[in-house]
Amino acid sequence: MPLDRNQLIGKEAILLLLQDKDQLPERLRQLNWKFCKGKVGAMDGKKVVAAVETAAKNQGIVKPDLYRETHALYHAILEAVSGVTRGSNQIGTLLRTVGLQFVIVRGNPYQDKAEGEWLAVVLYGTIGAPVKGLEHEAIGLGINHI
Amino acid sequence: MPLDRNQLIGKEAILLLLQDKDQLPERLRQLNWKFCKGKVGAMDGKKVVAAVETAAKNQGIVKPDLYRETHALYHAILEAVSGVTRGSNQIGTLLRTVGLQFVIVRGNPYQDKAEGEWLAVVLYGTIGAPVKGLEHEAIGLGINHI
Amino acid sequence: MPLDRNQLIGKEAILLLLQDKDQLPERLRQLNWKFCKGKVGAMDGKKVVAAVETAAKNQGIVKPDLYRETHALYHAILEAVSGVTRGSNQIGTLLRTVGLQFVIVRGNPYQDKAEGEWLAVVLYGTIGAPVKGLEHEAIGLGINHI
Amino acid sequence: MPLDRNQLIGKEAILLLLQDKDQLPERLRQLNWKFCKGKVGAMDGKKVVAAVETAAKNQGIVKPDLYRETHALYHAILEAVSGVTRGSNQIGTLLRTVGLQFVIVRGNPYQDKAEGEWLAVVLYGTIGAPVKGLEHEAIGLGINHI
Amino acid sequence: MPLDRNQLIGKEAILLLLQDKDQLPERLRQLNWKFCKGKVGAMDGKKVVAAVETAAKNQGIVKPDLYRETHALYHAILEAVSGVTRGSNQIGTLLRTVGLQFVIVRGNPYQDKAEGEWLAVVLYGTIGAPVKGLEHEAIGLGINHI
Amino acid sequence: MPLDRNQLIGKEAILLLLQDKDQLPERLRQLNWKFCKGKVGAMDGKKVVAAVETAAKNQGIVKPDLYRETHALYHAILEAVSGVTRGSNQIGTLLRTVGLQFVIVRGNPYQDKAEGEWLAVVLYGTIGAPVKGLEHEAIGLGINHI
Ligand SMILES: [Mg+2]
Ligand SMILES: [Mg+2]
Ligand SMILES: [Mg+2]
Ligand SMILES: [Mg+2]
Ligand SMILES: [Mg+2]
Ligand SMILES: [Mg+2]
Repeated sequence: MPLDRNQLIGKEAILLLLQDKDQLPERLRQLNWKFCKGKVGAMDGKKVVAAVETAAKNQGIVKPDLYRETHALYHAILEAVSGVTRGSNQIGTLLRTVGLQFVIVRGNPYQDKAEGEWLAVVLYGTIGAPVKGLEHEAIGLGINHI
Repeated sequence: MPLDRNQLIGKEAILLLLQDKDQLPERLRQLNWKFCKGKVGAMDGKKVVAAVETAAKNQGIVKPDLYRETHALYHAILEAVSGVTRGSNQIGTLLRTVGLQFVIVRGNPYQDKAEGEWLAVVLYGTIGAPVKGLEHEAIGLGINHI
Repeated sequence: MPLDRNQLIGKEAILLLLQDKDQLPERLRQLNWKFCKGKVGAMDGKKVVAAVETAAKNQGIVKPDLYRETHALYHAILEAVSGVTRGSNQIGTLLRTVGLQFVIVRGNPYQDKAEGEWLAVVLYGTIGAPVKGLEHEAIGLGINHI
Repeated sequence: MPLDRNQLIGKEAILLLLQDKDQLPERLRQLNWKFCKGKVGAMDGKKVVAAVETAAKNQGIVKPDLYRETHALYHAILEAVSGVTRGSNQIGTLLRTVGLQFVIVRGNPYQDKAEGEWLAVVLYGTIGAPVKGLEHEAIGLGINHI
Repeated sequence: MPLDRNQLIGKEAILLLLQDKDQLPERLRQLNWKFCKGKVGAMDGKKVVAAVETAAKNQGIVKPDLYRETHALYHAILEAVSGVTRGSNQIGTLLRTVGLQFVIVRGNPYQDKAEGEWLAVVLYGTIGAPVKGLEHEAIGLGINHI
Repeated sequence: MPLDRNQLIGKEAILLLLQDKDQLPERLRQLNWKFCKGKVGAMDGKKVVAAVETAAKNQGIVKPDLYRETHALYHAILEAVSGVTRGSNQIGTLLRTVGLQFVIVRGNPYQDKAEGEWLAVVLYGTIGAPVKGLEHEAIGLGINHI
């Protein structure tokens, strides 16, 4: 049941984002993994959540009318937001702004097929004062079964 | 004063770790950036902190007897732990175990030399039940001025 | 000084809410316990707090002009909100909405009369995306001396 | 896709626990819902997690060797612990002790069969100083898709 | 009902501690305010809680066998710990150690006598690595009705 | 490398605020320590952050166009807010309002000159319901290297 070191869903998602790739590696496409990406700049935490949810639904990563998929995605997003904010999950309410790219990957990272599908949500970009340049990088990764 | 897109300290640290590189890119070595890496497996949050601190001190990333450097490092580690634990900063107390690699990078990611040195601490690996295979990936990044 | 198993204030409050009762059991009315209930739907955490506070004051559970009672109530509400949000105390800022019923009970749940009066605040209902049906249940209980 | 008001998994779990029932209502057994219960007293958060996990595995609520089930359960437990501790997820490290009963229910609370199975974990009991009687009630509910 | 600016319980407690006074100002003793102080050094959060609780009970600030007083004190201590740890309530689990003095004051800081008695708990000292000198100051104040 | 007991930056900042002093003690002015103070009343966490940042920049405590100084200040403010809110960093979103005074001090509190400059941010005042008088005191201290 261990993770398959050739298909680490979180690592794949992070590398897709940081290396600005437009598609999944061939071996993962053959496994029917799915992927989408997008961007969001906001002082408002709920805009970050909404941007990722909308992309995932519009690009067919999750089924919009199945709550279990929305629920899996929501918690994965929240975990990613938690990494970006380093625990507080607050952005504008503490006078911070974020400029983020995101990648969502769906696939099974485990050797055992019975583990089914999982989601990885990565957020990466900058967080800082609402003034250009007064910012540093941040990353967050959320992983959930779907 | 913006970040220099060619020397994003967080991104460099993450890629060094995920791509398992043994040294910084040439352009960053020429800028006198420093780097070290290591591993830690633990159920005990303080062992994760200690492993990163010890590596940073032993490998000359921070001066062991200057508290301002230890302080900068400590908060960067804590922010990285917060990403790995998605906010709670708790591991064994909630029956989780982690198997992590870490990378620490020291350098100035900004265009303006006056911004001085910064630290990036990345933790990446798995978190899960204390049973082989019952785990998924996690990442955390902490960035601080030093 | 232990809790009296026949007058567990939290359990009574939860059962009143879940069983949709309109009054306290006879044995608790004879002990002069007080009770009120209400509903609130909101994306805004402060509306949840306000709805519970207003009900408690209007229905005579706490004295509106005595801060010690408002203070006891406030912290009980916050603990209940913490259960509903599972720690973050955030609702709309993370793009969630809640549809909650609440019950407030005031009385002494201990065998010893010297323990005086306590408050139990229960919130129960649904939390989820601001879309009908994309939601699951949540509960929170706050208990405080008053 | 809304929740079916006759099979609210969280409410059913809470009532099973508070009313000390030994089986699910007939209508839920006919839907093949599963249920187990147990007790745990501890100052150590990981013992609470372990007690619930062990019961769920031993009593056939989750498959022990399928990580996606363990993962669903773990996050449901953590959410329940968060309600009991009102956010901090800490027990003994802050000199508190808990005496808890727990109930785990597995079933589909939605009208739409496509929503599949969900888990509800309820923890209810007392939390307080490690001295008999110096305690009050607490409840926590975690819900997750499985 | 406002706070009386001449008897701000938190301010009085902080000044007693920082100015290392051995008794309350005369005007507060005439109002029958109570006060005690102590010290605690620990890596273990529960030792901090225990040291303050023990002092409060031994020195007659709270009645040891009345849970409502212990409860009021406990939450005041926790709020003070939260200030010292800046939110996480964790010390040794994150490889920090504290060296703290504490002061507990009991009295009514409001103009209205009906507000009754309140508690202020102040913790002040240093927090840092478990190495002499690698530390900075921290303060926490918890206030509760009793 | 220990803290110099005659120049404890946090203690000095707290006493300046609580004793309503208009300047630093002579011995600290001779060491070129800097200091400013101000007030802010708000239900909005970001207004508290903004008020302290603006004062620090306008009164020359930090250089407005150097991010490392803004970053040091921001984290010190956040730690102080965490003390005032006792962990949640939320104010208006939980229907609370604050009336705060603040003091910022910049200097080296350590015996070793190599420790360089540090910042202390103190927030002290009241927190409570948005109704005059329904409030109690709170304090927060954030300390950071700069
Ligand atoms: Mg997980
Ligand atoms: Mg930062
Ligand atoms: Mg309590
Ligand atoms: Mg959920
Ligand atoms: Mg309070
Ligand atoms: Mg610090």
